[in-house]
Amino acid sequence: MRNVKLEFLPPLIEKEIMVVEEVVFNTNNIQLAPFKASRWEVFPGKSSLIDVHEVRECWFIAKGEGELIRNEKKEGKVKQGDILFFDSNESHSICNSGKENILIFSIWWNV
Amino acid sequence: MRNVKLEFLPPLIEKEIMVVEEVVFNTNNIQLAPFKASRWEVFPGKSSLIDVHEVRECWFIAKGEGELIRNEKKEGKVKQGDILFFDSNESHSICNSGKENILIFSIWWNV
Repeated sequence: MRNVKLEFLPPLIEKEIMVVEEVVFNTNNIQLAPFKASRWEVFPGKSSLIDVHEVRECWFIAKGEGELIRNEKKEGKVKQGDILFFDSNESHSICNSGKENILIFSIWWNV
Repeated sequence: MRNVKLEFLPPLIEKEIMVVEEVVFNTNNIQLAPFKASRWEVFPGKSSLIDVHEVRECWFIAKGEGELIRNEKKEGKVKQGDILFFDSNESHSICNSGKENILIFSIWWNV
């Protein structure tokens, strides 16, 4: 039987800033889900690279806290348990204002 | 501008076992995403109610650790950072074997 845990592509590392691992969401070339996903971490005191794209995206904040920047404006603090939604072409980034890594699950899908 | 944080329906509480909050994923009756989502917690020493349904589902484990049960079989330990996939009609439950609450983000979608 298929393993219940999904696997990840090799990590993409922005040295001393963040690490991103994309989920492998297909098996035998069959797409399991109508979205893609990753998990990623931002180190304390660092900001994630500003991201902007046509696909819609959600962030599920699993660990830590930070300051959210959307469309170049500060949106206040976000923390463990929060779920954020970014519409097409809204730029977004998070600054890790805490003392531990931020861990976020991202999901993105075509409009 | 729309708030970046999504809101939740009132919590569904299984007394002394678990709490589930479903995400509000539509705005002005427009559906934002091709899936539904919730965040939920299971208290230490407790097992989530066994769930089985036609929709496919992913669990994103945000906090804690537990023993996974799939199709009535033990599947071993899962922990913070793991992403799990359940196909249609696979029953699933988690027993919180740790000392803190388990926090999980669930996403489900039609096949």
